Amino acid sequence: MSKGRILSGMRSTGRLHIGHLSVLENWVKLQDEYECFFMVADWHALTSNYADTHDMQQNIRDLVIDWMAAGLDPSKSTIFVQSHVKEHAELHLLFSMITPLSWLERVPTYKDQIAQLGKQGKDLNTYGFLGYPLLQAADILVYKANAVPVGEDQLPHLEFTREVARRFNFMYKAEIFPEPQPIIGQVALLPGIDGRKMSKSYNNFINISSESKDLAAKVNAMITDPARIKKTDPGHPEICTVHTYHTIYSAAELEDIRTKCRAGEIGCVACKKMLGAKLDELLNPIREKRAALEKNPDYVNKVLAEGAEKARSVASEVLKEVRKVMNM
Amino acid sequence: MSKGRILSGMRSTGRLHIGHLSVLENWVKLQDEYECFFMVADWHALTSNYADTHDMQQNIRDLVIDWMAAGLDPSKSTIFVQSHVKEHAELHLLFSMITPLSWLERVPTYKDQIAQLGKQGKDLNTYGFLGYPLLQAADILVYKANAVPVGEDQLPHLEFTREVARRFNFMYKAEIFPEPQPIIGQVALLPGIDGRKMSKSYNNFINISSESKDLAAKVNAMITDPARIKKTDPGHPEICTVHTYHTIYSAAELEDIRTKCRAGEIGCVACKKMLGAKLDELLNPIREKRAALEKNPDYVNKVLAEGAEKARSVASEVLKEVRKVMNM
Ligand code: SF4
Ligand code: SF4
Repeated sequence: MSKGRILSGMRSTGRLHIGHLSVLENWVKLQDEYECFFMVADWHALTSNYADTHDMQQNIRDLVIDWMAAGLDPSKSTIFVQSHVKEHAELHLLFSMITPLSWLERVPTYKDQIAQLGKQGKDLNTYGFLGYPLLQAADILVYKANAVPVGEDQLPHLEFTREVARRFNFMYKAEIFPEPQPIIGQVALLPGIDGRKMSKSYNNFINISSESKDLAAKVNAMITDPARIKKTDPGHPEICTVHTYHTIYSAAELEDIRTKCRAGEIGCVACKKMLGAKLDELLNPIREKRAALEKNPDYVNKVLAEGAEKARSVASEVLKEVRKVMNM
Repeated sequence: MSKGRILSGMRSTGRLHIGHLSVLENWVKLQDEYECFFMVADWHALTSNYADTHDMQQNIRDLVIDWMAAGLDPSKSTIFVQSHVKEHAELHLLFSMITPLSWLERVPTYKDQIAQLGKQGKDLNTYGFLGYPLLQAADILVYKANAVPVGEDQLPHLEFTREVARRFNFMYKAEIFPEPQPIIGQVALLPGIDGRKMSKSYNNFINISSESKDLAAKVNAMITDPARIKKTDPGHPEICTVHTYHTIYSAAELEDIRTKCRAGEIGCVACKKMLGAKLDELLNPIREKRAALEKNPDYVNKVLAEGAEKARSVASEVLKEVRKVMNM
């Protein structure tokens, strides 16, 4: 029995790193409970990457392959590319007519992100970036999704979507759109290998498609307790990035690792080797599935074509209802 | 030989009044010189009328029928409804990503119009109204129109379109969009029957589809020289609305009317009767053609269906080029 319909997505801005895995694990579970629509948000990617789009198509393919390698199943879920479903653009335009400018100006993340990406040399002072949450509202509501898996930080965006749904229903005296509910999943906050936030701009990430060798090198480069010079020096796991990873990936061995580290009974090299093995085990099936998908571009194309068709068939029916109550 | 391609349009917000006739006369002439696309701008109508859309479809039909009654010819021009061509919405969305917010905030008419329509109780502080000139840019450029008939007051909007075209071409290193040139036609500035600006909100307009009786009543209600009590009182045509109309519609008799008015040799009733006859003669063929079109809704539907198909076939080719250079 389906609990309802979900829309979620990610911007296609490059390969996924292991920080994304817990989000994907949630999605994989949700596939069995909900009717899921997973969207490669290429129009959203454009908001920050409009000045250099040379890798747009590669990024779209990489994202879809990463998703399927991590367990998204096109026989269960609708996997599609946002820009293949023009109804998102139409609903966004219709919503734009009824949405107060002040609602968008007040979205909490708006000014932060302009400042943050400004530091990376990206100019987000565009009309499209201001409308980002409204495009998200259209993405969700064009499928009448009643649930959206989100991180805590995205709650204001979802609240914005709910407000747009309410305003539309009120204005056109129609109960067309549900007010989608958040599904807040457990998300492991994984730091980058240097202990800072994992991010492409810091080059401190581990891709979920990393080869064993690269993976080992990344783990080797992780920052540990700088006080440990010799293997027998007592360590402080709480300040060690390797340890943070062990808390997530080595639950069974965790106590043992901590005790031995503090007692100077395990060296950082061995400790990292253990983590490397764990991660390799975790990523190996993803890597294999990924390699198989890479060899089968026709299949990936087919998934996206069928996904777009399915998405369009739902979205176009919703747009018909929308146009009808708006007399458009 | 076509001089190029034109896009023009009007918002579908009600019947046309005779103040629109000179614009339509220009369009009728342009049909023989250019490849013309005439757009019923229903999405633009929504920017100001989103709160009450009950007459949207009627307004669309009325506008198309007024156009054809006044001489727009579907065998020469492409006549279509904006919202039937989704490519406008897609190009608008793509443009939104590259368009600085400040460009839109600085469009000269922006704050004026918010204030003006605010007085009519319309709240235009929406995201869509801010993006109005950008939707216009998409309307024009989605057909690669290289010329746009405009009034002087619309020149800033056209300049905005030219800037968007330049920015797109520069950013994606492609010469996709022309910079459309203005065609500034002769536009007769016709006052309303009370001497103020002709406007629906003043209820001082004369519809181009007025029946003879209504037309005569409107002319009768026109403000003349208040100093004239008796027919023999000398008049001052320069302050008389009837005279302003005569300058446009009674060129041959104008000197005679002026002289007789100043000498108190013609009464206002007779003078108005003359004007009424002129206007009736002008509107009669429009009225007849209109009545015939009203009786033939299938034909109007066919014109709009064929127009939309033609427009889509051009717009979808342009969008293909756009997506290609953007790698979308
Ligand atoms: S032994 Fe392990 S937990 Fe302790 S500091 Fe070294 S890498 Fe970190
Ligand atoms: S005679 Fe004609 S022009 Fe003179 S005041 Fe009367 S209406 Fe006006």
